[in-house]
Amino acid sequence: MASGSLRRSRPPRTTLGIIGGGQLAQMTHQAAISLDIDVVVLCPDADSPAIRAGARHCPGAPDQLDDLLRLAAQCDVVTLDHEQTPAAMLHELGARGHRVAPGARAAQLGQDKAHARAVLGAAGIAMAPWACTQDLGAVVAFGERHGWPLYLKRPSGGYDGRGVWRADDPADVESIVKETGGDLLVEPAIAFLHELSVVVVRSWRGETVAYPPVETIQRDGRCHEVFAPAGIPRRRSTQAQHLAVAIADAVGLVGAMAVELFVTEDDLLLNELAVRPHNSGHLTIEACATSQFENHVRAVLDLPLGATELIVPGAAMVNVVGGIDGTDPFSRLHHALAVSGARIHRYGKAARPGRKVGHVTATGPSVEAARATATRAAGAMAAVCAA
Amino acid sequence: MASGSLRRSRPPRTTLGIIGGGQLAQMTHQAAISLDIDVVVLCPDADSPAIRAGARHCPGAPDQLDDLLRLAAQCDVVTLDHEQTPAAMLHELGARGHRVAPGARAAQLGQDKAHARAVLGAAGIAMAPWACTQDLGAVVAFGERHGWPLYLKRPSGGYDGRGVWRADDPADVESIVKETGGDLLVEPAIAFLHELSVVVVRSWRGETVAYPPVETIQRDGRCHEVFAPAGIPRRRSTQAQHLAVAIADAVGLVGAMAVELFVTEDDLLLNELAVRPHNSGHLTIEACATSQFENHVRAVLDLPLGATELIVPGAAMVNVVGGIDGTDPFSRLHHALAVSGARIHRYGKAARPGRKVGHVTATGPSVEAARATATRAAGAMAAVCAA
Repeated sequence: MASGSLRRSRPPRTTLGIIGGGQLAQMTHQAAISLDIDVVVLCPDADSPAIRAGARHCPGAPDQLDDLLRLAAQCDVVTLDHEQTPAAMLHELGARGHRVAPGARAAQLGQDKAHARAVLGAAGIAMAPWACTQDLGAVVAFGERHGWPLYLKRPSGGYDGRGVWRADDPADVESIVKETGGDLLVEPAIAFLHELSVVVVRSWRGETVAYPPVETIQRDGRCHEVFAPAGIPRRRSTQAQHLAVAIADAVGLVGAMAVELFVTEDDLLLNELAVRPHNSGHLTIEACATSQFENHVRAVLDLPLGATELIVPGAAMVNVVGGIDGTDPFSRLHHALAVSGARIHRYGKAARPGRKVGHVTATGPSVEAARATATRAAGAMAAVCAA
Repeated sequence: MASGSLRRSRPPRTTLGIIGGGQLAQMTHQAAISLDIDVVVLCPDADSPAIRAGARHCPGAPDQLDDLLRLAAQCDVVTLDHEQTPAAMLHELGARGHRVAPGARAAQLGQDKAHARAVLGAAGIAMAPWACTQDLGAVVAFGERHGWPLYLKRPSGGYDGRGVWRADDPADVESIVKETGGDLLVEPAIAFLHELSVVVVRSWRGETVAYPPVETIQRDGRCHEVFAPAGIPRRRSTQAQHLAVAIADAVGLVGAMAVELFVTEDDLLLNELAVRPHNSGHLTIEACATSQFENHVRAVLDLPLGATELIVPGAAMVNVVGGIDGTDPFSRLHHALAVSGARIHRYGKAARPGRKVGHVTATGPSVEAARATATRAAGAMAAVCAA
């Protein structure tokens, strides 16, 4: 009787389902441990990062409705670690009474760049001129009107520099259009001063918080380094946060979303959206009052959101990628751990050339100090590849 | 062929075994995720905090050699989350070729208060006068010589105020000695200015780091609140760290250890040792460059240790315990999450009256601000119990 009464004093455990078991799910699970939340991930591979970290495994594919329903049946809410589930299937899960966060409407923005531009342009969000076409003449006309070079992107499925091409002239356009087939999103190159990302988190009840903007440094078309505070005036920073909140509200976001922006001489222009926790927010684990992962968990479970401010003067993150010959940078882990102040995150993924397999964060008395520490630690693991 | 070669590029995964699956193992597992380290815990209950967090389960008892050997057989190194394994069994594991950290010698200090005082007194560590006896006359004589009141403690097995009695006069001593049986550690009450704890971590190769001393506030004989920096002069702070390092070196520690100290008008006196990560080090998760849990993992795997300095101006931790009527404070979790800046840690344990089931940490621009936030958030969950 006593034991039964003690058992009853523990409320039932909440289960969070994640479609995808990659590093975002890994770090979401890690954050969920502090709230004693049970995490189950849907993915084909039992050796995925989140399952290695201890999340439960629901074997299946992210684009098979039966698998999605099997996941949803054992969860209080379902969320996403990637963009591979068609929005229509997310809608179907919702229609069958499952809670899905972000909803189909918000998720679709992260899946289709042209759709996102159409929706957010109509909502008054500033962005560069764009077109979506597979017509060679239309692309060339766009270049003549807005200036060369152009960037041509697949509207869906591209990431980390894949599915993006630069065209310096009509001849480039011709070869790209021939190679790709299907509609391409066309944009002029933007003369930006800074690239920013703002992670914004919104809960079911509409509570919304935005993190301080971080500055991102791309290398080969993909995020290489992130630091905070960004090197922009306070006014711009506040403007970027307001913009991110406006987008979150406009699309009824539930969960975390990264809003990537260009800072030009005169304005902030929308670049890309990622409707999930994001690489540009990894430094929030160490540098902010609440990490993007914990706030994502809180949001999708409709718990109060945590404070987002930086708790340190400066922070930086550098991605760790597989060597050009496929070597695993973590074979040199001890060199990185020996760099004082470096915070190593290893995803438990097999190394392939250029594949993100981890990241290093550092905090410090200044953003310069943090950048130096993170760069040194990441470099200590990359040394073999550079040789 | 290609796939085989990629697979080989991921080095074999390291497995850490932990005897015990409580909240220390839970938070150790959480830290180990960032290094992609596999964690397996030995405990009887499949519903223990560490297993709920995703550590693998090795069912068994901490004081059964067969169970310990079964754990050790699947691990690169074995460590501890409590003091329930006899030092002789740890020694036996080592003798059979398993790596055990801390070793039997260091672990014994945490298991036997009288033994620890004898060993460390001989090594020149300052401590209050003490005796270990079950003789009534000897205890009374100790009181007459060093002054009343006395504290009488079971040398082994006590924690969180259990196994400790206060004797104000010879009559008290008589009833305590009658009640307990067996030797008791006898000490005078110390007129201290502050109670401190220093977490020190030492690796196999002898690299040793000490955290900044934290100040601890006891309530009902157990840790209630911890904050950093401690309210002591820098000179005392450095002295406390040196003392902790000296003890770690003297006993050949491998892993994390908390050294609890009294600050008196003139000196630092050793109070207690815990030869494992410790409640007084929980705030290192958010407030220090490397958490005690990550440094414990690094130490027992003989990886380079991380920086220990505070990365924020002030930090505080308050324990969350079951209500006097056994209610679970986490039934009011949303109230605590609504306190801006509070970092909630829930262990996933059934609530019982006074049982530690979680803690709250806060960081802030000052230690006062951090204490206020942590106290407010912990209080928000305790409100029902106070009514």
